[in-house]
Amino acid sequence: MAFTHTNADDVAIATIRTLAVDTVGKANSGHPGAPMGMAPVAHVLFSRFLNANPKNSKWFNRDRFVLSNGHACALQYVLLHLLGYKLSMDDLKLFRQLDSKTPGHPEVGHTDGIEVTTGPLGQGFANGVGLAMAQAHLGALYNKNGFDLINNYTYVFTGDGCLMEGVASEAASLAGHLQLGNLIVIYDDNHISIDGDTACAFTENVEQRFLSYGWQVLHVDNGDGDLAAIYNSIAEARQEKSKPTIIRLKTTIGYGSKVQGTHGVHGAPLKADDAAQLKEKFGFPSDQHFYVPQETYDAYAEFGKRGAALEAQWNALLATYGEKYPKEHAELVRRIEGKLPEGWEQTLPVYKPADAAVASRKLSEIVLTAITPALPELVGGSADLTGSNLTKVKGSVDFQPPSTGLGDYTGKYIRYGVREHGMGAIANGLHAYGGIIPFVATFLNFVSYAAGAVRLSALSKHQVIWVATHDSIGLGEDGPTHQPIETLIHFRATPNLAFWRPADGNETSAAYYVAITSKSTPSILSLSRQNLPNLEGSTIEKAMRGGYVLVEEQNEDITIVSTGSEVSIAVEAAKKLKAEGIKTRIVSLPCWLTFDQQDEEYKLSVLRSGAPILSLEAASTAGWQKYSHEQYGLPAWGASGPYLKVYEKFGITGTNIAAVGKKVIEFYKSKNIPAVSPLLKAVHL
Amino acid sequence: MAFTHTNADDVAIATIRTLAVDTVGKANSGHPGAPMGMAPVAHVLFSRFLNANPKNSKWFNRDRFVLSNGHACALQYVLLHLLGYKLSMDDLKLFRQLDSKTPGHPEVGHTDGIEVTTGPLGQGFANGVGLAMAQAHLGALYNKNGFDLINNYTYVFTGDGCLMEGVASEAASLAGHLQLGNLIVIYDDNHISIDGDTACAFTENVEQRFLSYGWQVLHVDNGDGDLAAIYNSIAEARQEKSKPTIIRLKTTIGYGSKVQGTHGVHGAPLKADDAAQLKEKFGFPSDQHFYVPQETYDAYAEFGKRGAALEAQWNALLATYGEKYPKEHAELVRRIEGKLPEGWEQTLPVYKPADAAVASRKLSEIVLTAITPALPELVGGSADLTGSNLTKVKGSVDFQPPSTGLGDYTGKYIRYGVREHGMGAIANGLHAYGGIIPFVATFLNFVSYAAGAVRLSALSKHQVIWVATHDSIGLGEDGPTHQPIETLIHFRATPNLAFWRPADGNETSAAYYVAITSKSTPSILSLSRQNLPNLEGSTIEKAMRGGYVLVEEQNEDITIVSTGSEVSIAVEAAKKLKAEGIKTRIVSLPCWLTFDQQDEEYKLSVLRSGAPILSLEAASTAGWQKYSHEQYGLPAWGASGPYLKVYEKFGITGTNIAAVGKKVIEFYKSKNIPAVSPLLKAVHL
Ligand SMILES: [Ca+2]
Ligand SMILES: [Ca+2]
Repeated sequence: MAFTHTNADDVAIATIRTLAVDTVGKANSGHPGAPMGMAPVAHVLFSRFLNANPKNSKWFNRDRFVLSNGHACALQYVLLHLLGYKLSMDDLKLFRQLDSKTPGHPEVGHTDGIEVTTGPLGQGFANGVGLAMAQAHLGALYNKNGFDLINNYTYVFTGDGCLMEGVASEAASLAGHLQLGNLIVIYDDNHISIDGDTACAFTENVEQRFLSYGWQVLHVDNGDGDLAAIYNSIAEARQEKSKPTIIRLKTTIGYGSKVQGTHGVHGAPLKADDAAQLKEKFGFPSDQHFYVPQETYDAYAEFGKRGAALEAQWNALLATYGEKYPKEHAELVRRIEGKLPEGWEQTLPVYKPADAAVASRKLSEIVLTAITPALPELVGGSADLTGSNLTKVKGSVDFQPPSTGLGDYTGKYIRYGVREHGMGAIANGLHAYGGIIPFVATFLNFVSYAAGAVRLSALSKHQVIWVATHDSIGLGEDGPTHQPIETLIHFRATPNLAFWRPADGNETSAAYYVAITSKSTPSILSLSRQNLPNLEGSTIEKAMRGGYVLVEEQNEDITIVSTGSEVSIAVEAAKKLKAEGIKTRIVSLPCWLTFDQQDEEYKLSVLRSGAPILSLEAASTAGWQKYSHEQYGLPAWGASGPYLKVYEKFGITGTNIAAVGKKVIEFYKSKNIPAVSPLLKAVHL
Repeated sequence: MAFTHTNADDVAIATIRTLAVDTVGKANSGHPGAPMGMAPVAHVLFSRFLNANPKNSKWFNRDRFVLSNGHACALQYVLLHLLGYKLSMDDLKLFRQLDSKTPGHPEVGHTDGIEVTTGPLGQGFANGVGLAMAQAHLGALYNKNGFDLINNYTYVFTGDGCLMEGVASEAASLAGHLQLGNLIVIYDDNHISIDGDTACAFTENVEQRFLSYGWQVLHVDNGDGDLAAIYNSIAEARQEKSKPTIIRLKTTIGYGSKVQGTHGVHGAPLKADDAAQLKEKFGFPSDQHFYVPQETYDAYAEFGKRGAALEAQWNALLATYGEKYPKEHAELVRRIEGKLPEGWEQTLPVYKPADAAVASRKLSEIVLTAITPALPELVGGSADLTGSNLTKVKGSVDFQPPSTGLGDYTGKYIRYGVREHGMGAIANGLHAYGGIIPFVATFLNFVSYAAGAVRLSALSKHQVIWVATHDSIGLGEDGPTHQPIETLIHFRATPNLAFWRPADGNETSAAYYVAITSKSTPSILSLSRQNLPNLEGSTIEKAMRGGYVLVEEQNEDITIVSTGSEVSIAVEAAKKLKAEGIKTRIVSLPCWLTFDQQDEEYKLSVLRSGAPILSLEAASTAGWQKYSHEQYGLPAWGASGPYLKVYEKFGITGTNIAAVGKKVIEFYKSKNIPAVSPLLKAVHL
């Protein structure tokens, strides 16, 4: 179909440009330049290609649109408004105001029609790769002859900033390897970033780079006005089924402004006279703000109707599919609705104290092996540490382009390569698509490489599960470069992020149970390399509360609260103390977030007043003061050596902890300080 | 000079291979495959090219060698031993044992001859870019006609893993832009990573990618044995003065092993019979371990002597330089010795309460402007946020290749582009080189993108200064995607990392003073976007202690401890409470690490027993329990809006904090809990 460039197109583009200017202008804050420069491509994409229903932004087979350069969100808000999403003109006028639907960067779950939260550069690009992988996977699984149910495209807008970020490089390389023909990235090549001309820091050949990744590379030389070229490039991109496409679109930042093409129009509102001359230039009333010609509203209403019609067709197709493939239909619908299959949790392994000591990374493998058959939505992989993370269930198929001969798109095991940050951001995209619970894996220490993506999982409520093994000095010989210290409190302090550090088999099952049933909370499962005994007193039910009394004593002299691999060391210390007539309670606290969500009475019964509480963990003690009076942990960095020797070096042994416990008891007695529960507080946030 | 491949070369290479096998074998832990595969290139590089003096590993103009694939460190340890560095055969036999000189990954400052700590993938590559930038900068500054004093090369070994990491991509793109002809990377293209064949995840065209970055790309098809080709490629790389070079070297991982070329030889020792057949194959006694032919020791001793002679020549050249250019000589020697110029600290700005309220990012700019003329070693830049971070001192020259017309290599301002992780790792390299105190800048929230590099700064004792602006919800409209929450405790919990959050002008000067005088501690300066009043009671001297009493009261009812932009809010609350007859002390605690290093008596005088202590900070309260009884902060994420409204939304106002303070006082009275200083502890790690 050839493209006809009409006057209505120009009016619509001028409308987008001036609305973006007024939106930023009224807020007196924000970024007008990129919206003005990308208005033509946005208009062509949304008017001619994007299959989506503004009246149901959750239609499953919609095309996904990601604004990776999220600071340009005035553009996205304007388009959502024009298309008839739940975003009014008043919402545009409240841009960047407190509690409005139009925050400073787009937030999924907050604003209708936003697919992923963007702004932190590079993330949206990688989210787009995840969205495209999800389509490829679910399409391969559920599409049947005559039922091309899941076949949407993912479109990503990106600027120079995103392309400089390593997270985007990682995702781009993987996207090329995976031959994602359903991914179309439009690169706003405007030669400007915050520091000015990109000549000062970004002179690589972007086209050649993407060719090296195996992408199709197209370009449009006049992105400011050559709508036909824009149209044709997108059409061509859609034809390439075995490569992702990047279209390099030369644009003028702040097109139409008196300071167009300069950094001056990037991150600050246009001056009043500049905005006025812009409107005049486009034939719009120069003294009006938020002006939308009726013809543009009408045209966009038509685009919206097209989307509604597409959804109706699709719903009919889905219904017929249900008749022919009732089993697949039921499963697909269940996954789209985000419901778990009934009884999946019956597959979780249960342990008795007599069971052999096993590393919790291995316990995790046992869980994955047990639950995977029951949970087809569990799709995951590792950043090139499969044999160490133990994340690949025996017999599982790799998610790979069939041409590699290494798997196919129905495969559920993803080979991420050594790309932790890209992996985390891709997983956010996999979850954002729907129908998938993504898990990802690396050493706990290297989850930090992905910190930017992890915080967005938590902020955006993406249920991403990190299998984070080698979680302490217990990894031994690899030494301090690999031994997490600050990592635990970093993630515990992140809101809506469940950091689990299970102590044994039952606690590992509990961690998985809560992680899989928490539909809007990401989890990090912090797992040991070394073997851990199964504990007397642990059960899945108790551990599901995030913290519980593992060893009870009445009129205790001390309570030791601990997690993961140190709980059994605390138990050993308690036994030594008992031999000396000292009564020690043990609390296991595998997940702070989950424990904090329990009722007050329960929490105060676990960490009760009456005796001093000592925390024990092979990491920084930072944060443990919330749950304990005294803290034992690592004073600084770990060390390289066989793990038992490393533990001994730092005094994390039953013998030493017993000695520390006695010191604590004596200190409290000698000072005559009443041991009030650390949870008793005046201030509750 | 043509290369002559002698039998001695083969013997030396066989020695390296078998020593690496025995080193890993004795430890029963480690990675033999890459050392065996890279032995030929290591031998050619160290025997024919690398200018370094094993007897003085700190000679300033030595070539720098970085093993970015640090897990292959058996290779590096073997070479250091053969060359005569302070690393004995016994040290090799203690590989990966507790407190040995040969830990599981190479650590700078721990082992003679190690330039940077590697192991976390991608870091060494980026460190290498920093090392090369440092040479380019100091060479441009100090070299004179006839005095090519600083002209070393930086050689980096890298594997597939490093090249998949985004941090390496970022650094590679910048290195190409900067035209670093002194950087030579040798890529061990062995087609194997931990997950097996790289075909499963890493199929990009690496050569084309590096061409896109502007690098010279060479390759050697037989890296296992074609020493002449290896030699010629390195020689050719050295000839290219305006581009970094990457040499793609095809090797066989675990060359000589029965399972060579497979993942089986990557991360586990060779079986005994395999090691024996390997030795036999090379004509070595198959039953001996740690065997070194005398001819190889002799040959390596000669290479070492060449390095000693080079240093002697250089020292003579430096002396003559000193006669001709006494001023430059004195400055260069001072910088090499890591001494600060006398009196530099006199330039630090001092403030009075009457001085205007200024954002601490602006206060930072004032400091940089004041101290830069006195501190030529201060070399830094921003990740494309120059105008927001306020890091460019007026009139400063960009560090750029002269051909860009944008600056030259004497320039001290670095345009990092949007590459936070690369920036952090490059800064580690800049510091590792010597003579430079690097600073880097971005928003505080995006320091997290660089977490992998920041923790290595701290572990490796690199004095890198982060200018981290927009440090709270006080950034306002950009919203939760940009507002740090967990960031503060993450970095405070990192050992040997000074996280400063100054409250006003004097505290900002103090933060810079301590950051610049702490030669082996990195610092993050957490700075506000919004204006902060200069406080009554703050001085540089007091703030230098990391924490101090800002507002004293006898028989106080409460103490509020706070940092940065919230200190003035605490002062406001104190005034409101005073009006009601409630006595409030205020403690400012800009740097936990520095405060923790003060003597016990001082600390207990600042956070004393007697009245409850309430912490106040616009971030997660995690960790504050260490210094306070009660905590006020953000319950979860921030919000997008004008910053005063955001502060109000979360109750961080003088009025609300006064109310919270009263609640705390009443709670402690009603419960009759004695307010014992939270610093009084039984356990001190
Ligand atoms: Ca741009
Ligand atoms: Ca490899």
